Amino acid sequence: IFATEILVEAVSIKKPVGTPRWPLHAGVEVVVTMDTPSISVNDSKVSFYLGNEYSLFDNISGVSLDADTSRSREVNRNGTNKSKWTWGPDGQGAVLLVNCDRDGPGSGMDDTDRHVQSSADLQDMSPMILRTQGPSDIFANYKLVLHVSMFDADKVRVFHLHNGNESLSQYKHVLGSNKLSYTVERGEDIFYVEGLAFPDAGFSGLVSFHATLLEVSHKDLPDTPVFKETVVFHVAPWIMTPNTLKPLEVFVCSIEMDSESPNADFLETVRSFVEKTKCKLTICPEVENRGDRWIQDEMELGYVEAPHRSFPVVFDSPRNRGLRDFPFKRVLGPNFGYVTRELPNGQVTSLDSFGNLDVSPPVTVGGKEYPLGRILIGSSLPRFGGRKMTKIVTDFLYAQKVQAPVELYSDWLNVGHVDEFLSFVPAPDRKGFRLLLANPSACYKLFKEKQKEGHGDAALFKGLKREEITIEAILADKMLHHENFYVQNCIDWNRSILKQKLGLTEGDIIDIPQLFKLEGSWAAAFFPNMVNMLVLGKDLGIPKPFGPITDGQCCLEAKVCSLLEPLGLTCTFINDFFSYHVLSGEVHCGTNVRRQPFSFKWWNMIP
Amino acid sequence: IFATEILVEAVSIKKPVGTPRWPLHAGVEVVVTMDTPSISVNDSKVSFYLGNEYSLFDNISGVSLDADTSRSREVNRNGTNKSKWTWGPDGQGAVLLVNCDRDGPGSGMDDTDRHVQSSADLQDMSPMILRTQGPSDIFANYKLVLHVSMFDADKVRVFHLHNGNESLSQYKHVLGSNKLSYTVERGEDIFYVEGLAFPDAGFSGLVSFHATLLEVSHKDLPDTPVFKETVVFHVAPWIMTPNTLKPLEVFVCSIEMDSESPNADFLETVRSFVEKTKCKLTICPEVENRGDRWIQDEMELGYVEAPHRSFPVVFDSPRNRGLRDFPFKRVLGPNFGYVTRELPNGQVTSLDSFGNLDVSPPVTVGGKEYPLGRILIGSSLPRFGGRKMTKIVTDFLYAQKVQAPVELYSDWLNVGHVDEFLSFVPAPDRKGFRLLLANPSACYKLFKEKQKEGHGDAALFKGLKREEITIEAILADKMLHHENFYVQNCIDWNRSILKQKLGLTEGDIIDIPQLFKLEGSWAAAFFPNMVNMLVLGKDLGIPKPFGPITDGQCCLEAKVCSLLEPLGLTCTFINDFFSYHVLSGEVHCGTNVRRQPFSFKWWNMIP
Repeated sequence: IFATEILVEAVSIKKPVGTPRWPLHAGVEVVVTMDTPSISVNDSKVSFYLGNEYSLFDNISGVSLDADTSRSREVNRNGTNKSKWTWGPDGQGAVLLVNCDRDGPGSGMDDTDRHVQSSADLQDMSPMILRTQGPSDIFANYKLVLHVSMFDADKVRVFHLHNGNESLSQYKHVLGSNKLSYTVERGEDIFYVEGLAFPDAGFSGLVSFHATLLEVSHKDLPDTPVFKETVVFHVAPWIMTPNTLKPLEVFVCSIEMDSESPNADFLETVRSFVEKTKCKLTICPEVENRGDRWIQDEMELGYVEAPHRSFPVVFDSPRNRGLRDFPFKRVLGPNFGYVTRELPNGQVTSLDSFGNLDVSPPVTVGGKEYPLGRILIGSSLPRFGGRKMTKIVTDFLYAQKVQAPVELYSDWLNVGHVDEFLSFVPAPDRKGFRLLLANPSACYKLFKEKQKEGHGDAALFKGLKREEITIEAILADKMLHHENFYVQNCIDWNRSILKQKLGLTEGDIIDIPQLFKLEGSWAAAFFPNMVNMLVLGKDLGIPKPFGPITDGQCCLEAKVCSLLEPLGLTCTFINDFFSYHVLSGEVHCGTNVRRQPFSFKWWNMIP
Repeated sequence: IFATEILVEAVSIKKPVGTPRWPLHAGVEVVVTMDTPSISVNDSKVSFYLGNEYSLFDNISGVSLDADTSRSREVNRNGTNKSKWTWGPDGQGAVLLVNCDRDGPGSGMDDTDRHVQSSADLQDMSPMILRTQGPSDIFANYKLVLHVSMFDADKVRVFHLHNGNESLSQYKHVLGSNKLSYTVERGEDIFYVEGLAFPDAGFSGLVSFHATLLEVSHKDLPDTPVFKETVVFHVAPWIMTPNTLKPLEVFVCSIEMDSESPNADFLETVRSFVEKTKCKLTICPEVENRGDRWIQDEMELGYVEAPHRSFPVVFDSPRNRGLRDFPFKRVLGPNFGYVTRELPNGQVTSLDSFGNLDVSPPVTVGGKEYPLGRILIGSSLPRFGGRKMTKIVTDFLYAQKVQAPVELYSDWLNVGHVDEFLSFVPAPDRKGFRLLLANPSACYKLFKEKQKEGHGDAALFKGLKREEITIEAILADKMLHHENFYVQNCIDWNRSILKQKLGLTEGDIIDIPQLFKLEGSWAAAFFPNMVNMLVLGKDLGIPKPFGPITDGQCCLEAKVCSLLEPLGLTCTFINDFFSYHVLSGEVHCGTNVRRQPFSFKWWNMIP
């Protein structure tokens, strides 16, 4: 230690010239800080002495535990405030990934074994460096222990590069469940930290590691701590991607010809639609989907991100129908992570399907910014027997913190998914997007106009092997009108919540004409539900409504095009009538999209 | 509604003179706000119309759900932002008490039954008023439902004053577990909300109630929501009281003469000491303590507070020795609440005793204020087999939020309690208190001085039926010196944590001379542990150390008096040698104090 000035009673005083000692009166408190530690004991500098002099040598032990606390892809040296983790552009604190992809040779996620399996596996971990400096003979009487609390231990695993030899077998598992502390030899040690658990109810996502210097005072006595360094990591949250992000890969199921409702034609239309957008198309074959075509419902594709690493992560829903094994067996892979929340009893409702889970584009609500948007979850009104998404899933979604969820009312629908009445499309103006809402009133208004124009006998479902129904007949059906008035009320309730929670005004919303009908007390689309669309950049794959032909064109398609084309969007109407619509779903329910992550880093927001 | 101005595209415009209509171009968004609702429909004002016109009539339904959101002991009318609960002097949001006292006739807490038992019982609840205004014929088509989410339902119980008749039997239990919603008749309704659960792991303390107006659109169709009001309550945390607060009542146990270590003499000394301080003295008789004298360990006395009501609450430790039933049977009572956290398996360690739980006076740490102080918990270093306070208790303590806990290292002690090495006393200067720390080095220093002065043959334990030991013999005992060097290291570790976490400097700390000895690897007081004292205002009841008599006075007593009397404190040395000290405890372990609550209101802090 070079001591060139000392701090007395909060006033810094310089060393008096020409005297080896500083005279201080009794009771003065002296704070000595260190630039570099001594090389040897008594090297004519202030002697390097540990402990027992109260507060004199806090923080000058020459022990430093560091990680990428500045989020710069580098392990910082002697960072300050390492024991605090803070949000925002001025925040600091290191980030940890749940190592939930499968780079290694096993059949499960990389975080299920206690080995470093490959360099890709290692790269999913966060480095942590323990440096010890100072005179080597001092360390004879001290022991350095790296440790983690018993409450954090099951959330992480720490590997230590043994012997400095970088072959993978030399990475030793040193901290984790049943390994709370590890005695470190003197020198510079590199550790790799692997996350095992996402933030969730009861786990904030923060994990602390401590390096404690223990004094070995007497052979018959226990060691005593003299110095402690702490560094905190935040496990990266799972992040959802809204429709406004660039699509990279589209998933769809193939249902064979020998099935009751094969989807070959639909598949062909989707293939050429996706081709136009230059996305990758992944078709899940029947052997893997076992007749279950609702790939939107089985999984949600998101991602995790640390400064040094990011990869997509599939959230496998507890729904578990024919597609049950697809996310784990086919989506999980190298640099593609997997997470799920299963109900022990398997008692799911339709609201647990991920068609009932969506995310808005970035919004600002009354000054509060949501730069990663807000998660939307369909839920019920507080009535007995009302269906809700299971708490084990909503707890997980809330705990991610960065896309604060909003609960909507979807239980009025038979299937009960938010994608049955809303979607988001990109827009060049305003907030960068529009919210599309299914709207029965807009459909009645359109049909009345067409009737006035003399098209009362134009019929829905023309050309389908199915009973047609004219505009006149629809407008004359009092019960259908009552039902749609009810549906409009339900959607308006959601409109009001969405406006409030996403900070939207009417100009941010586009009403898509749509009729519903009631099945028992629950609603379903009367004709293919246009809002249930596949959004790939500016290209929209919209369920073909088979509406009344007026002036040589489907008046529903014409209306939707007139609403969306001015935003630079292209509408492609896809026939899903017999392959999806009559089975209570549409294009969106039958597809899934992996999108590019946000360029915005989640740690730069303030949740 | 009187509409005298309207807001168009965020610009307010006045009503044009001399015209009954405002001409507006298409696409304009109109926001209408209400001062008072109409008396009847179409009363020549803007007609009172609910729903279906997007955003036009948000918030003007004439339904208002109110509580004491301004924390003024009054239910506010038409408060804004009622769905947010915020901390601090500018914060808002209502407060709920856990009705954990026993005003009613039962043998348990008031919150265990579903009835309002007495007016005192009712006063522990928080009023909530649901007001409905507007034309009465509108309400024919609407239904008003008060509801609580299924996640909050088990934390509260809501009672409704039925028929306006205020006799207690008319309070009907309307919301709670298995009662998620309640249909309210039109009018002004008073509800009383009872808290059932303290904040804890997985429960933030916030509970929301909603009043939803439902439209009954058609007899064959479900109701649809058109308007929702939400009010949020925060359950009051359990708050500990530091030594600096005024003592009101002292608890001590009576151990009969036929016991091995009776405490009649001790009891008599404590009685006259407490009498001097004008505190109430409550003696727990042997029939209730069953030979267990450690009343500090069995319970911690704190309080809860809402703007309208406050009462003390005993936290019963999971320790459960002879005093097990005392807190529930004798302390719980009218306006005296009770809470406990029990381990299902009953596997407690000595660190679960509440002698291991203390709280500092108010402190400020690096600009952050802790106006209610910080909880101190003794814990272990991360070594296998290290003892820690059980997580079910520390989770509870952390969850109260207002006295953010600090974990200290107490596992080096045989009994393992923080009150074996620290205490706080009031002081007229500096931060209003001093931290007292047991200090072996200070004791060696004192004994060496006395030896130099020629008192080497003065002995400890004089006059006790016990082997005496001279200052010289103590100073010559090398192993004892090693052990105390080790103990000093352990206490210094805590000193460093305390300075950091409580923002203290050396001037805030007073070192109390004290020696320890090791029993196996764990430490115990070598002579009565003076820091383990009973603090009643400026009167300190200190374990009589039986130190060496020099110049006609015990040199330990003289030293402690010289340290504490300048602060205006009075030291009374209480002989607890055979009744407590030889049983591994002292005065503090054998007493407990109920203190006056803070004048500072917890909701005015920012945790």
